Amino acid sequence: MREFDLIDRIRKTIGAPGPGTVVGIGDDAAVYEPPGGLELFTCDAFVEGVHFRRDFASFREIGSKCMVANVSDIAAMGGFPTRATVSLCVPPDMGEAQAVELYDGMLEVCRRYAVEIVGGDVVGSPSGLMVSVALLGAVDRGRVVTRAGAVVGDAIVVTGDLGASEAGLLALTRGLEGGGAVDEAKRKHLLPTPRLAEAQAIIDVATPRAMIDVSDGLSSDVRHIADESGVGITLIEEALPVAPAARKIAERVGVDPTKLVLGSGEEFELVVAISPSEVERAAEHVATVTGTRVTRIGEVTEASQGCSLVRTDGSSEPLARLGYEHLVEGGDHGA
Amino acid sequence: MREFDLIDRIRKTIGAPGPGTVVGIGDDAAVYEPPGGLELFTCDAFVEGVHFRRDFASFREIGSKCMVANVSDIAAMGGFPTRATVSLCVPPDMGEAQAVELYDGMLEVCRRYAVEIVGGDVVGSPSGLMVSVALLGAVDRGRVVTRAGAVVGDAIVVTGDLGASEAGLLALTRGLEGGGAVDEAKRKHLLPTPRLAEAQAIIDVATPRAMIDVSDGLSSDVRHIADESGVGITLIEEALPVAPAARKIAERVGVDPTKLVLGSGEEFELVVAISPSEVERAAEHVATVTGTRVTRIGEVTEASQGCSLVRTDGSSEPLARLGYEHLVEGGDHGA
Repeated sequence: MREFDLIDRIRKTIGAPGPGTVVGIGDDAAVYEPPGGLELFTCDAFVEGVHFRRDFASFREIGSKCMVANVSDIAAMGGFPTRATVSLCVPPDMGEAQAVELYDGMLEVCRRYAVEIVGGDVVGSPSGLMVSVALLGAVDRGRVVTRAGAVVGDAIVVTGDLGASEAGLLALTRGLEGGGAVDEAKRKHLLPTPRLAEAQAIIDVATPRAMIDVSDGLSSDVRHIADESGVGITLIEEALPVAPAARKIAERVGVDPTKLVLGSGEEFELVVAISPSEVERAAEHVATVTGTRVTRIGEVTEASQGCSLVRTDGSSEPLARLGYEHLVEGGDHGA
Repeated sequence: MREFDLIDRIRKTIGAPGPGTVVGIGDDAAVYEPPGGLELFTCDAFVEGVHFRRDFASFREIGSKCMVANVSDIAAMGGFPTRATVSLCVPPDMGEAQAVELYDGMLEVCRRYAVEIVGGDVVGSPSGLMVSVALLGAVDRGRVVTRAGAVVGDAIVVTGDLGASEAGLLALTRGLEGGGAVDEAKRKHLLPTPRLAEAQAIIDVATPRAMIDVSDGLSSDVRHIADESGVGITLIEEALPVAPAARKIAERVGVDPTKLVLGSGEEFELVVAISPSEVERAAEHVATVTGTRVTRIGEVTEASQGCSLVRTDGSSEPLARLGYEHLVEGGDHGA
């Protein structure tokens, strides 16, 4: 594969610059009209053997997930994604058709969420495939939601249900078959959905104080809100919305479904700190607009109380801080 | 090394958000006030074994060069860099102190060119080190210079001199010693300078029609202008400003200095298509403001004439299209 051939093909696939883009892909930098309001900027890198395995995921799925993870970050700030650049590090055993397939996966997500790819580079990689996406977004002043605004007494709510992403990875690594829950969990792991419409629906009818997407795992991500807001957070085990597929797979392989839920990364559900008086209105509106359930799973406490989980038997345990060490040392994420 | 520890340390190193930045590093995305005028967006990934080798470059030099390459892309569009995100893929044999050293190299460049790092992620890499920088910039309407505006009859000029980056790489790969030219070339290769002030000086007194920074090598980069502008370009061998250190090393190792110049990537000099009537004024102003020489090296022709080099003996040869294939298959870039 030759760099310039691939770039030419990618340019053709992407097509003409979109509205507001003066110079798209193919120059030293893209040029565009900044949107009104504030702008958002995020990035995420995906490394073969750490974030994905080519024997589990198709190139289309790998591309899709890289873009979804970035869109999810923009959603969690209260904004809409706008423009992206993509760095692709291509190993020797990967051909042009496969690189195009990976781009197609990204472009499907881009079309769905009105993202334009305006630049990028393609370089050789001596070992594995690596994809790094940088994504811009736009957000109205007054609709920004950071991790830092949670206050004592807030409710903690979550969109959708949790655990299926990790359960899907378990099913893939252990070679589980059998359709139904197994296929459902694999699909959730390989083709997740960002909660853009859900975030907007919440902000339309309520004033969320802090928001984050579940990318490292509920346990870690709740701690990020606690750390940035200077508060504690208590989660209630019996309130956790365990995905039915996750519960079935947890039973089948003999793991605690709650542990599965707490450590399940790349769920891309939203965790939100919100006034208790706004929970019902927000949940109803999200359900009406998107069909997604919103569940109250805990509350914000004084910082001195730390982050903990109240088990169904009434006992309490600290929420572990998972993340990189989980991904790499745990070995369950395909490392 | 633990991801969150490193991120905390990086946040402390970077400090408080700069002017116009509402939310800096440490949330799902950065939030900022868009600048007036137009905005620029670029990215570049650097892969161990392809773009750098740890036995040649210090972590500080690796970090510096990654940021310089991106700043150079913004310079080549006529803009100023503003905000960056950084994805760092860290191999198992690299510690936190070394990651911080790499960041320090980037931050030195950031301070010099008023860039703020507003986000990023740190992930594990099963094999080599990989750094991907995405950089935003601001540019006044009317000062944007793309690759696409060169017209027949324009002069082609270049800032500084060429060849020392490739000569430095040659010196490193062949283990050349001896101070003087060797050290100078190694320094140019390891710690290059983006031509931000030079680009601005040209735009202040002239209307450059097309501009690009020399990142793949003069031969390829001139072709990029030709392809995007729909023109041909003829370079004159005897006009090429061969860096004295490059000439000395070319002689020492027995390579054609012109070939060295044409294929020397990561020079970060600017190649500009400009009306012949503006060359003298632009060159004088750049020299006055920055001390950098501007040299006329060729002219823009009809597309049908293609891209060629007129040798000193009067013969003509096509300019080769180098790039990825050069980097990876040529093996001279540390692959």
